[in-house]
Amino acid sequence: MREAIVHRLSMRAPDDVAPLLAAIGEGTIRPEGIVGILGKTEGNGCVNDFTRAFAIRALRDALAPHVGAERLDEISMVMSGGTEGALSPHMLVLERRENGSGPSPALAIGSTRTADLAFEHLGRREQVLMVADGVRAAMADAGFTDPADVHFVQIKCPLLTAERIAEAEARGASVATRDTLKSMGLSRGASALGVALALGEIDETSIGNDVIGRDMSVFSSRASTSGGVELLDHEIVVLGMSDEWCGDLVVDHAVMVDQIDAESVRASLMRLGFSGNGQIAAAERPRLKALLAKAEAGSTGSLRGHRHTMLDDSDISSTRHARAFVAGVLAGLVGHSEIFVSGGAEHQGPDGGGPVALIASRPDDGISITTGRA
Amino acid sequence: MREAIVHRLSMRAPDDVAPLLAAIGEGTIRPEGIVGILGKTEGNGCVNDFTRAFAIRALRDALAPHVGAERLDEISMVMSGGTEGALSPHMLVLERRENGSGPSPALAIGSTRTADLAFEHLGRREQVLMVADGVRAAMADAGFTDPADVHFVQIKCPLLTAERIAEAEARGASVATRDTLKSMGLSRGASALGVALALGEIDETSIGNDVIGRDMSVFSSRASTSGGVELLDHEIVVLGMSDEWCGDLVVDHAVMVDQIDAESVRASLMRLGFSGNGQIAAAERPRLKALLAKAEAGSTGSLRGHRHTMLDDSDISSTRHARAFVAGVLAGLVGHSEIFVSGGAEHQGPDGGGPVALIASRPDDGISITTGRA
Amino acid sequence: MREAIVHRLSMRAPDDVAPLLAAIGEGTIRPEGIVGILGKTEGNGCVNDFTRAFAIRALRDALAPHVGAERLDEISMVMSGGTEGALSPHMLVLERRENGSGPSPALAIGSTRTADLAFEHLGRREQVLMVADGVRAAMADAGFTDPADVHFVQIKCPLLTAERIAEAEARGASVATRDTLKSMGLSRGASALGVALALGEIDETSIGNDVIGRDMSVFSSRASTSGGVELLDHEIVVLGMSDEWCGDLVVDHAVMVDQIDAESVRASLMRLGFSGNGQIAAAERPRLKALLAKAEAGSTGSLRGHRHTMLDDSDISSTRHARAFVAGVLAGLVGHSEIFVSGGAEHQGPDGGGPVALIASRPDDGISITTGRA
Amino acid sequence: MREAIVHRLSMRAPDDVAPLLAAIGEGTIRPEGIVGILGKTEGNGCVNDFTRAFAIRALRDALAPHVGAERLDEISMVMSGGTEGALSPHMLVLERRENGSGPSPALAIGSTRTADLAFEHLGRREQVLMVADGVRAAMADAGFTDPADVHFVQIKCPLLTAERIAEAEARGASVATRDTLKSMGLSRGASALGVALALGEIDETSIGNDVIGRDMSVFSSRASTSGGVELLDHEIVVLGMSDEWCGDLVVDHAVMVDQIDAESVRASLMRLGFSGNGQIAAAERPRLKALLAKAEAGSTGSLRGHRHTMLDDSDISSTRHARAFVAGVLAGLVGHSEIFVSGGAEHQGPDGGGPVALIASRPDDGISITTGRA
Repeated sequence: MREAIVHRLSMRAPDDVAPLLAAIGEGTIRPEGIVGILGKTEGNGCVNDFTRAFAIRALRDALAPHVGAERLDEISMVMSGGTEGALSPHMLVLERRENGSGPSPALAIGSTRTADLAFEHLGRREQVLMVADGVRAAMADAGFTDPADVHFVQIKCPLLTAERIAEAEARGASVATRDTLKSMGLSRGASALGVALALGEIDETSIGNDVIGRDMSVFSSRASTSGGVELLDHEIVVLGMSDEWCGDLVVDHAVMVDQIDAESVRASLMRLGFSGNGQIAAAERPRLKALLAKAEAGSTGSLRGHRHTMLDDSDISSTRHARAFVAGVLAGLVGHSEIFVSGGAEHQGPDGGGPVALIASRPDDGISITTGRA
Repeated sequence: MREAIVHRLSMRAPDDVAPLLAAIGEGTIRPEGIVGILGKTEGNGCVNDFTRAFAIRALRDALAPHVGAERLDEISMVMSGGTEGALSPHMLVLERRENGSGPSPALAIGSTRTADLAFEHLGRREQVLMVADGVRAAMADAGFTDPADVHFVQIKCPLLTAERIAEAEARGASVATRDTLKSMGLSRGASALGVALALGEIDETSIGNDVIGRDMSVFSSRASTSGGVELLDHEIVVLGMSDEWCGDLVVDHAVMVDQIDAESVRASLMRLGFSGNGQIAAAERPRLKALLAKAEAGSTGSLRGHRHTMLDDSDISSTRHARAFVAGVLAGLVGHSEIFVSGGAEHQGPDGGGPVALIASRPDDGISITTGRA
Repeated sequence: MREAIVHRLSMRAPDDVAPLLAAIGEGTIRPEGIVGILGKTEGNGCVNDFTRAFAIRALRDALAPHVGAERLDEISMVMSGGTEGALSPHMLVLERRENGSGPSPALAIGSTRTADLAFEHLGRREQVLMVADGVRAAMADAGFTDPADVHFVQIKCPLLTAERIAEAEARGASVATRDTLKSMGLSRGASALGVALALGEIDETSIGNDVIGRDMSVFSSRASTSGGVELLDHEIVVLGMSDEWCGDLVVDHAVMVDQIDAESVRASLMRLGFSGNGQIAAAERPRLKALLAKAEAGSTGSLRGHRHTMLDDSDISSTRHARAFVAGVLAGLVGHSEIFVSGGAEHQGPDGGGPVALIASRPDDGISITTGRA
Repeated sequence: MREAIVHRLSMRAPDDVAPLLAAIGEGTIRPEGIVGILGKTEGNGCVNDFTRAFAIRALRDALAPHVGAERLDEISMVMSGGTEGALSPHMLVLERRENGSGPSPALAIGSTRTADLAFEHLGRREQVLMVADGVRAAMADAGFTDPADVHFVQIKCPLLTAERIAEAEARGASVATRDTLKSMGLSRGASALGVALALGEIDETSIGNDVIGRDMSVFSSRASTSGGVELLDHEIVVLGMSDEWCGDLVVDHAVMVDQIDAESVRASLMRLGFSGNGQIAAAERPRLKALLAKAEAGSTGSLRGHRHTMLDDSDISSTRHARAFVAGVLAGLVGHSEIFVSGGAEHQGPDGGGPVALIASRPDDGISITTGRA
């Protein structure tokens, strides 16, 4: 049976691959098994964030000698920019091994890449359908037959820049928006709807262009999408629990209904066998391998009846505000800030909320975990 | 006996005094008893934040007809800029009434203003001593004889601008820093040391100029200071528990040891009779009248061993990052974001942490509270 | 005959009215004749810029005792936020006097205010028509019968905030955009098209909703519009040359075809009798009373074939980049930075360029000026 | 005789080396002769600007196959972050050829790198002396014997980060500042004083630590220094006119006395044979190969008597304001925005001003140029 292993490595700069190379040198990480790398890099997480491309260039240079050029392109590298507040730059290396050991069901990982997206398709139905096909391919890659086994789908999607808009318009095509920052939101939203479609959360009839970026009541509870200027296609990683996989790791997910819905995440921690009474105790922290969450300002301009100013701030993007704030909510629960909070949750969880994935090693005997099908 | 009442009012803009005037009209607030108004306004909270002065102008215009020009100057108006993340702009109106009713000991409030501070004294020993005298005066105003009864001291202090530096230098005086943003930190720090001195947390020998803004191991556990371009003196409000005061309100405080020390605040919530098991339940929320906290990036560049990027971000001031993040930690506990998180905690609590004050109405009979002397 | 006088006053803060009150005290400014005040305030010039409202509050308080409440509302107060680069905060007080003296034709000034704009009309044909009617009313106020005599129309227009959008949607109305920063551009653009319509630069058939904010080939060469969160209607000031007015002041205008078209402005300076060979000499500077210009990044992402990054910068709004840069171009010509550069030139001049107005006192005899009809 | 050639290449992204590789492929650029590459990259130009390191990584990868690893380290790569306003990202490739042709004297180029700088020496006398030695070495590399022949010295210098400060303090060393953004200014200033010392503009007695970053009356008229997080040493490039070099290119320099001193630059353009009457005509533009300038807000908070707000803006660094504004002044003269404006001119030209270098090809016969010794 296959086994999935998740390695969390701190980064001292966007191009810091020293911990990765050290782990490979020590044999802790087997490069041939790497299927994906999720990273939080310290840029602004918006249009002109080059820390993502910088990190990917460094990762590719570091891995090339170990895996070869061809395998390299099969590794999903999803860098999410923005480490606001005390968020700590780090990477999550997702590795698969044949002939694994340990209990089953266990964490399973699948991945794929789509073809390049035409700029005029960004934020439109065409993007939703392309992503849905990609998610199905990534599920097949992990052997998932039932969408209910999938807990989280992480996608890196493209965005528009002034030059890409010009390119499309030069061809006589019209883009969904000429606002580059807004294009990131549309791309994230369309990608999330692609997940919802593939997981059966919605059906094809509900994804007209009037829905994408507009009707936030339509969403996926298990999608996390992130935009980047450095790619033109989509990189897709699927996480779930599978009887065909074994190992020490398990995954669960929660859906925050708003930016301060700590209770939903606390419930997931308890399902995973953590003592959920307040912040995770220092002794328990090592068992939580990774926390991935989405954060957004939402569209209402208020939170539980109180006005916030994230949407009206012309100095700081609302995505940066939301990441910093939600990071605080979650770090307060898990007791550290090396967590993966990604901005922009359009169609990812309810308006103002978002999905959260938690990956943990199994607790000591006697502590039961109840995570399983979504 | 005197009674202290705290009114929390939402603000729709920096100059929104409609809720205040409405409360006065309904008799909920008696203007003649107002001793202080603490407000969170939606500017950047840094040097060029004019929302504070704008709010104060609106408040003065609104209250003048009710209290008269002379009384007006006795009301401390401490506007703290910066509502990052989901922080919600609001004001806390502190009112005192003679011949109050209810149990004792109870929340007690004292206030005062100092003389104007010479620009060259900002961030130096002279400012520390001036503030210490002011705190003693505010304590006397509330009838506090024992510093141990004081739970929180909120101070608004001045800062340097390019023009103020030029004014001082034109007089041949030299200022502590020519960096205007840095001057806010020095002023906050010197003011906090003034509180520590007045409360007996430190003695005069430990406040050389080499300590102010440098040695963060010297601090007050009960000071909250905030800088503003709109004043030249210091406005001081002291909160504590007093046998000579009565009423439904009590105050407690906690000291966060770092930006995610939710446990210290949860312990205070439990002392106040809240069910501390996770986020405060909706039913309990109305009982928490106010939460005031300090947030800062700290000087180490890391949190619990994980590097953060707040100090290296040249696009967003570290004070803005810290407010957004700590606001998330605290909002995750109390279940809403209309809380008073003020940036820049130099010498206020340990490096990277800060004091938190909680004001609550008494719980139903049967639930005991253990707050008392600090 | 009527005479128009323009007073330029430096501001030390958004609420600095001391120079205005001093000028009134000295009799230099006759408050009863003030028709408009144009100010550059030091906020971000975007959605959450409260320096505009703060300045207006201070101006109203300062003028009320001198002109009375009723006249006060007739004074157009157009505060334009954003003093990027070395731009210097200042105000231009536009005064009219009966029985003036001096040559004719001379500078003439008209003004008016429209009714409040429904939020759902912002950025749409309805706003264009409302503004066009307003411009005609302002022209009539100055006695302009021929649009060719009008050199500049300055308009302050409303914008959308998260709350205003919610208000409209609560009524079942749909707004032109849910992006608050973008709403400023749509409002500026629709207002500019209103000017073009009133001045006969375009006809009604060319202002469909598909044009507003989209087809930048449709524009006015004499409109300058600026958005503000503090008003719900439009404030309109018209400047031109009139045979029915007399005095020492004349006005001319130029149209910059892009952000570095200094030559068009230099030609206007020469029409006004300045020695146009490079930067205006120190001796000539006092004669230039005011320079008002529009700046924008344009929609192409490049300038004369070279890519710029204003549109892709998610840290600084393109309006702030453009103001700072164009201010440099113009300050390099006139030799100082107390000039009025307003951001966002949608439909004001060609894409990437914008109109510029110059107000000067007449040169010494012997130097001819050629400004006249537009 | 040796010949210096300057190639200006546009960049579509920080890692865009396509134009460089194309020029090498076509033989326009001979890689073995490259001595330095100066680039403007589109980051914030402050502490957390990773576009500089990203660009350098791409440049090194591109050149390695052509020049070999050893020569690669001898090539100065000075990336200056910040393309505010309409500044256009580009690189200037400085090439040297043996057995050149063309008239003499002509542009001459020398370069070198220093050893790594200890963090505690940054912004202090030790850095000044280290840089002075480096400049002398770079002059010798070009064969300059008389400092009067040197028109411009471009230096890239290191800065402090939170981690570097911690590293130094862990060794018991104390750094000049704990403010990372401020450290860039101190490093730029100390490096500039190193140039002044090497060129004989000042003597050793005038470089106490009380001067560096403080006494702006001490400066170099020919230094341009730029900080970067990606290096620990100094990269130095010297430009001047030499009888021992030949070719079509000449260099001149000007010193702007403040941010709008266009006249000094216009005088240099006229010395170079351009028609200085206003903006350079389109036909003449190709002859101007490169313009390099420094921009800064200055320390007074005002420009020619008018207050600016660059120093009080806590949302945008003053270095970003100054680059955008000065870029406008200069682009207005030369007619395009692909110019090299670098922020932070501490001790580079007078307070608020800065040196400017202009590299041009010789004009047609009959037009004389008067550039020569500085």
